[in-house]
Amino acid sequence: VSRALRVVLLGCGTVGRGFLELLERERPRLIRRHGIDPQVVRILVRRPGLRDGIDPAVVTTSPLDAIDTPADIVLELMGGLHTAGALIRRALVRGQSVVTANKALLATAADELAALASKKGAFLGFEAAVCGGVPIIRTLRDSLAGVSITSLEGVVNGTCNYILTRMERGSSYVEAVQAARECGFAEADPSMDVSGEDAAQKMTILSRLAFDEPIRRVERSGIERVTRADVAATRAGGSVLRQVAVAQRVAGGISVSVGLRSISGTHPLARLDGEENGVIIRGEAIGELVLTGRGAGSLPTASAVLADVIACAGEREGRKAAA
Amino acid sequence: VSRALRVVLLGCGTVGRGFLELLERERPRLIRRHGIDPQVVRILVRRPGLRDGIDPAVVTTSPLDAIDTPADIVLELMGGLHTAGALIRRALVRGQSVVTANKALLATAADELAALASKKGAFLGFEAAVCGGVPIIRTLRDSLAGVSITSLEGVVNGTCNYILTRMERGSSYVEAVQAARECGFAEADPSMDVSGEDAAQKMTILSRLAFDEPIRRVERSGIERVTRADVAATRAGGSVLRQVAVAQRVAGGISVSVGLRSISGTHPLARLDGEENGVIIRGEAIGELVLTGRGAGSLPTASAVLADVIACAGEREGRKAAA
Repeated sequence: VSRALRVVLLGCGTVGRGFLELLERERPRLIRRHGIDPQVVRILVRRPGLRDGIDPAVVTTSPLDAIDTPADIVLELMGGLHTAGALIRRALVRGQSVVTANKALLATAADELAALASKKGAFLGFEAAVCGGVPIIRTLRDSLAGVSITSLEGVVNGTCNYILTRMERGSSYVEAVQAARECGFAEADPSMDVSGEDAAQKMTILSRLAFDEPIRRVERSGIERVTRADVAATRAGGSVLRQVAVAQRVAGGISVSVGLRSISGTHPLARLDGEENGVIIRGEAIGELVLTGRGAGSLPTASAVLADVIACAGEREGRKAAA
Repeated sequence: VSRALRVVLLGCGTVGRGFLELLERERPRLIRRHGIDPQVVRILVRRPGLRDGIDPAVVTTSPLDAIDTPADIVLELMGGLHTAGALIRRALVRGQSVVTANKALLATAADELAALASKKGAFLGFEAAVCGGVPIIRTLRDSLAGVSITSLEGVVNGTCNYILTRMERGSSYVEAVQAARECGFAEADPSMDVSGEDAAQKMTILSRLAFDEPIRRVERSGIERVTRADVAATRAGGSVLRQVAVAQRVAGGISVSVGLRSISGTHPLARLDGEENGVIIRGEAIGELVLTGRGAGSLPTASAVLADVIACAGEREGRKAAA
């Protein structure tokens, strides 16, 4: 017997549409294997209008209409700080479960939202917020719960990696940014990516999970000044240029830094191509654990959202069984 | 406030001693961050005698004495099929939580033990059974719960990888096996490793988690006949020799195969050195996800055991809160 699981979807952009596609594709497996049958009961969109394959009756442009629709889980895939934050808080306050991919919001408010969720007994999932289809959140939070982590080093911005590996194939910086836009990785304004701001937000979220100490400083520099000549010269020396984010212990806490780095061709992050992401986790007991995969894109990110939905359903079921 | 968590440890070999060491090292963090304070109330050992740093009062050579000690979690780190299986079943039948690293047992009895645990509402964790410190179990079960996996490809036996990478540095097969023994990776009789039996057991466990279809065939061949000349010739062609385990869909189910393979030097598993393990997970929605790390050894494997203990404590707490 499968249980219906009412889902409100806030935002129907790249990730939201990917989620709807993956949900239909995987529904038979979700019913058979996990005993759940998620029903999307409301979708908040920015602009009205017909959408392929979506029942017009579930679509709304009203945030209040969406968030006040009776549901078991709220999926926040709209991005932005203000409205998204208000809707997430509204759901958590009434003990409703939330899954979000909003890294900008989490970079500043993760602790507050986690405390609110915990107080209200609500599930809060955010695997999709960092590294798309690479399950770095669950790895740090669950799989490495028993070990002290000493440092994190990662390529966590797929757009920058796409630009830099494109330049290795001969593009100029401007051409590579344009190609990233055409592939849908880069926004019309890619400054969040190329400045290192996006990577710094992601590494901040990871650092909160990985370390018990406060973040003392966040430094970042951009990749905008890199030239074809830089890329070629680095390559001639057996290395590659990558936007690398690092979090490590310093006196009194954790330091996060993001910038263009030359890394050896044999470095585990050197083989990441295009929009791929990767993170090296170091700890005394585990040595180096490396995760690499598709860090961006509609379906990889949707797979992280769906994993959180399944985990949330499992927790609800466990509690119901106990009660 | 931290909760005491009574632990019975069955077996005090490499992984058991690693667990005790890691537990003492991480105890302050476990109390502070996870609110648990695990107490090892009984340790089953094969031979009596004093052990450094272990209270003689908790040590027993009687399996019945050990398994009937009142406890919240049973850690089965003794290996073997018969006694270990009987003790695990005895614990699960009375609804007690079990964490095990016993791949041989799980390769044949995972479905039966999981069904028993589920029926009795008991937690069953086995992250430590495959790939030591590489969290492949949780990744397949939780992080990829929402995607259909098409294939798995991995280096899952650290002893074979140690032998083959040692031969790349000039050792003969016999010398490399001897070195693996001296490092504590290989047993006095390493035939389980070099024959591919161990890797086939691990890939069978992973396949049950990854796929919904039955395993139709398991094929394996050993690495015992590899020579220095083979290794050198492969290398001259830009490739390396590795013991590779593959699971993929075939007509009517899943095929598992283990054997010596020549893989390109740029293949994600080619850079694994010594006892490292790695698994490539392929799926339509995620592309390739790669995990690599320390696949064997006392502390990496103990870190997987401790992660399961923390997860188990978290589930107990969630149920208590709901009840």
